[in-house]
Amino acid sequence: MTVLDQTRKRRPVASTTALPDPSALRDEVDAILVDFVAKRAQAAPGPEMTPLFTTLSGLLEGGKRLRALLCVAGWYAGGGSGDRDLILRVAASLELFHAFALIHDDVMDGSDLRRGRPTAHLALATVYFAEGRLPRGATDHGLAAGLLLGDLVLTMSDDLIRTGPDAEAMWRIQPLLETMRSQLVYGQYLDLVASGRPCADVEAALRIVRYKTASYTVEWPLRIGAALAGAGPDVHSACSEFAVPLGEAFQLRDDLLGVFGDPSKTGKPVGDDIREGKATVLMALALQSASATDRQLLREAVGTPDLTDEGFGRVREVIERSGARRQVETMITARRHAALAVLDRAPVPFPAAEALREIADIATVRQS
Amino acid sequence: MTVLDQTRKRRPVASTTALPDPSALRDEVDAILVDFVAKRAQAAPGPEMTPLFTTLSGLLEGGKRLRALLCVAGWYAGGGSGDRDLILRVAASLELFHAFALIHDDVMDGSDLRRGRPTAHLALATVYFAEGRLPRGATDHGLAAGLLLGDLVLTMSDDLIRTGPDAEAMWRIQPLLETMRSQLVYGQYLDLVASGRPCADVEAALRIVRYKTASYTVEWPLRIGAALAGAGPDVHSACSEFAVPLGEAFQLRDDLLGVFGDPSKTGKPVGDDIREGKATVLMALALQSASATDRQLLREAVGTPDLTDEGFGRVREVIERSGARRQVETMITARRHAALAVLDRAPVPFPAAEALREIADIATVRQS
Repeated sequence: MTVLDQTRKRRPVASTTALPDPSALRDEVDAILVDFVAKRAQAAPGPEMTPLFTTLSGLLEGGKRLRALLCVAGWYAGGGSGDRDLILRVAASLELFHAFALIHDDVMDGSDLRRGRPTAHLALATVYFAEGRLPRGATDHGLAAGLLLGDLVLTMSDDLIRTGPDAEAMWRIQPLLETMRSQLVYGQYLDLVASGRPCADVEAALRIVRYKTASYTVEWPLRIGAALAGAGPDVHSACSEFAVPLGEAFQLRDDLLGVFGDPSKTGKPVGDDIREGKATVLMALALQSASATDRQLLREAVGTPDLTDEGFGRVREVIERSGARRQVETMITARRHAALAVLDRAPVPFPAAEALREIADIATVRQS
Repeated sequence: MTVLDQTRKRRPVASTTALPDPSALRDEVDAILVDFVAKRAQAAPGPEMTPLFTTLSGLLEGGKRLRALLCVAGWYAGGGSGDRDLILRVAASLELFHAFALIHDDVMDGSDLRRGRPTAHLALATVYFAEGRLPRGATDHGLAAGLLLGDLVLTMSDDLIRTGPDAEAMWRIQPLLETMRSQLVYGQYLDLVASGRPCADVEAALRIVRYKTASYTVEWPLRIGAALAGAGPDVHSACSEFAVPLGEAFQLRDDLLGVFGDPSKTGKPVGDDIREGKATVLMALALQSASATDRQLLREAVGTPDLTDEGFGRVREVIERSGARRQVETMITARRHAALAVLDRAPVPFPAAEALREIADIATVRQS
């Protein structure tokens, strides 16, 4: 009897149906998001609120919907079947939660570009500027408006969950949502306090990754989906075992794209991590392996907000030369394999495992 | 038969018990808050999070607990009786929600003082400064950290609600919480887009007040309490009729304290509204009634971030001279009376009405 046969024996009977393909799922999730945002915009008090909803709609036009896909895959992994309305609403709400995270992240970093558009706070500043009023300066106005939009979207993500038909199921996932939300904030705070001081500690950098990204990008979307299907502890364990390495690989890819990526594909600038002095794994490895001269260059350049493009180019060369880029690629591959290996023995239906394999590729082998 | 007798006839029988006095209720709510924050701090990943919880605990030491008192009074008004554990948890969660609102409000305004202490973002900047690290500047760090703390506290306010014993009741109040939360954001955004351009439109200023303060300070706390008691539509209507004028009176008092108050009592600076050019009712009335010369002075000084103390003193004199201060006092009195008049005919138990009278005084006749 092969390993696959053993796995099959444990498979819930109800859910051997093939999963909808990712692009069909994305369309379903997008339709829910568009409808929900439109309803909230309509219910808002007056035309002054229009910029908030226009900006949110613009932001939601982009995105890979990775969290939504994982949530739906988690539902199938947990044996979910039949009416998908509830799971799609929860999946869509995770995309709103992600939108909140992006909006506030961009406010904190003062970033200009996201998903190929001006960031939310910049878009909101522009509205104001266009009106010819500059009371506190367009930038300050934009940051305040971005903060408010983020708050609104965070509460909207909760509200969308509650539009679903099954109060009991919704209630059941609240503890998972609670963990997801607090881990994101903790991760962002870890990231913030570690910024500005380049450090060669790879483990510390990985800890930040686990909290700020892996958790809300992979583990909790997947497990929330599984919980909605009523999955048992063995499925939850398998989800976490799959999610942690994949979530790390996702962020490691993001770190590489932030330095070596093509902004026309990533939709965000290169170099921001370097200028903000983010304590990434990539930077930790570069500091470990660079020559003394190169390390000195890194220490001087990293965390310099007004670093020129030439200065950034030199940092990029040092990272390349140090071997850190290759090391991070190796780490991504190892983590992707570890995640895929979990699927070989996970007690989840074959079609769900296949969908998770596909998502693992989307998350790690990507240019955007 | 007097009006009072008619009211008595409609009173639910179950809830004629006297309410606990406000200071006893405050102690019970504070105990829940202290316990909840301590548990969350303990569960947080590592000592890096300590500044977040220390800052939150400091902020929570102050405050009138007006929203918690209103929530409990609403519960009694709706006929609630018996075990108070659930209602106290919800009441405490509204104080966390208020803490979130204060933290983000102070970030947006760049305020320095709140409840007699450094604002959250300033406290968090100080921690960082004390460590001798200034990567993005202590101010920027503090603002980012304050934004994150606000996010955390917003989600914590939701989490605290769910620690209660009655999932069904908690679920029932979600639509009310949804309205409360979105109205706060809408009000803050209205306030933001109206800032910087002094305007004589009293109705526009009152609209901002209704969204940004009256709603989450009075109406929804009261009605959430009533909903938890299973109150019918007549009680909800009475709560709204009482709440809207009282909420307006509360903010009008706040506006006066922001210009004429004593910082040693209010715990926050005077003059910030003027320097930020907030579109308050007070300012609208002053612009309506001031002489041409005085109006010119207002237009030049209001919305000037670096207005000197002397300049602010002149603005204060103009407001006084215009009669706007007296007009606002008159508006507060009229609204307080309107709110109290609702209680005379509201279908709520006598002890609850008495408690609401006391809260109306706390909200409108105050120096802090």
